[in-house]
Amino acid sequence: MRLRNKPWATKVIVENPQIVEPNPQQWKGSWKELFGNNQPIHVEVGTGKGRFVTRMGKAHPEWNVIGVEKYDSVIITGVERLKDQPLNNVRLLKEDVTQLTEFFAPGEIDRIYINFTDPWPKNRHEKRRLTHEGYLKKYSQVLNERGEIHMKTDNQGLFEYSLESLSQFGFKLKNISLDLHNNSMEGNIMTEYEERFNKRGVKIYRLEAEL
Amino acid sequence: MRLRNKPWATKVIVENPQIVEPNPQQWKGSWKELFGNNQPIHVEVGTGKGRFVTRMGKAHPEWNVIGVEKYDSVIITGVERLKDQPLNNVRLLKEDVTQLTEFFAPGEIDRIYINFTDPWPKNRHEKRRLTHEGYLKKYSQVLNERGEIHMKTDNQGLFEYSLESLSQFGFKLKNISLDLHNNSMEGNIMTEYEERFNKRGVKIYRLEAEL
Repeated sequence: MRLRNKPWATKVIVENPQIVEPNPQQWKGSWKELFGNNQPIHVEVGTGKGRFVTRMGKAHPEWNVIGVEKYDSVIITGVERLKDQPLNNVRLLKEDVTQLTEFFAPGEIDRIYINFTDPWPKNRHEKRRLTHEGYLKKYSQVLNERGEIHMKTDNQGLFEYSLESLSQFGFKLKNISLDLHNNSMEGNIMTEYEERFNKRGVKIYRLEAEL
Repeated sequence: MRLRNKPWATKVIVENPQIVEPNPQQWKGSWKELFGNNQPIHVEVGTGKGRFVTRMGKAHPEWNVIGVEKYDSVIITGVERLKDQPLNNVRLLKEDVTQLTEFFAPGEIDRIYINFTDPWPKNRHEKRRLTHEGYLKKYSQVLNERGEIHMKTDNQGLFEYSLESLSQFGFKLKNISLDLHNNSMEGNIMTEYEERFNKRGVKIYRLEAEL
């Protein structure tokens, strides 16, 4: 994603604590209190401009949805979106995914989404891929025993890598699609990238993984 | 594969016991005696016309290679091929893959190849796919503890199914390619199908699995 400098972004984020939770550490182990209900918690890592979490939160009021994105200039679009259509079951965290275990207690999360994240194709950047075993270790800590990872990408190399990495870590794979939009999947929620790629006829890869 | 009736095939097969081993049961647990060496044993299930096993045996004299194919009219081409260029480290079995554990002792096989096998796309035929858990159970019995399955196919549905089936069974996946001939893989041995598909620009999927 190209990052544009948006100097006003930080201010808008701080002024909207009901959208971007400023102290996620304090809710570790008690996110259901913040949401005021006992619903499952779904987290999108690298949530970008927030279209997926917004749509997901709207389509599934029975879930709590949290998007984690570290860049002010990107997450700001999600903030504007949620200012326009407030959703009580959606929160954004302007945080780094590496800190995930600081915000969530063991077993607190029901599902993690990894959508169209940076493929980091160079070998020396392998550790930055959001399906590197370093991240999988964190996910496995915060997911509950029936927790799942749902991943989508248009990047062949990242998908091959992720299948292997998840499998080697001990996740079991299911509902794999090597061409999502030519298979039938009911209830698929599209991200910004996905809409753009789909219009251009690019194949979308998808998987689910469980421990 | 279309089957043509070749009434002479059975006779040629019986007349060449040095190529098509007529009593595989009797070698269960002692294939290395038949080959007269202590080399690893690689088995291709659904070996078809035998081009892969012939090429593999020639390229790797340090391995023993066995091809299993149940149809007379198909395996006959492999027999003719091996009559033209005898290879001491290659054998064919005119047998059904379901009988695999009748021919091989636990841990006797080092590697199983599954190349371009029938995808059996209908749900009611799932059990016939050579990566159905019924087959995986047999493979896991005859493979040794460092044994591997290497699979290639052009069929997207079969590949998706196989990734899931192997993963759910407990195999770990590695060296996955979603476009084999546009990745670099040294030493790839092409099958008949693969050559034909590759010429037409069809993508070839490949995986390796280990227990």
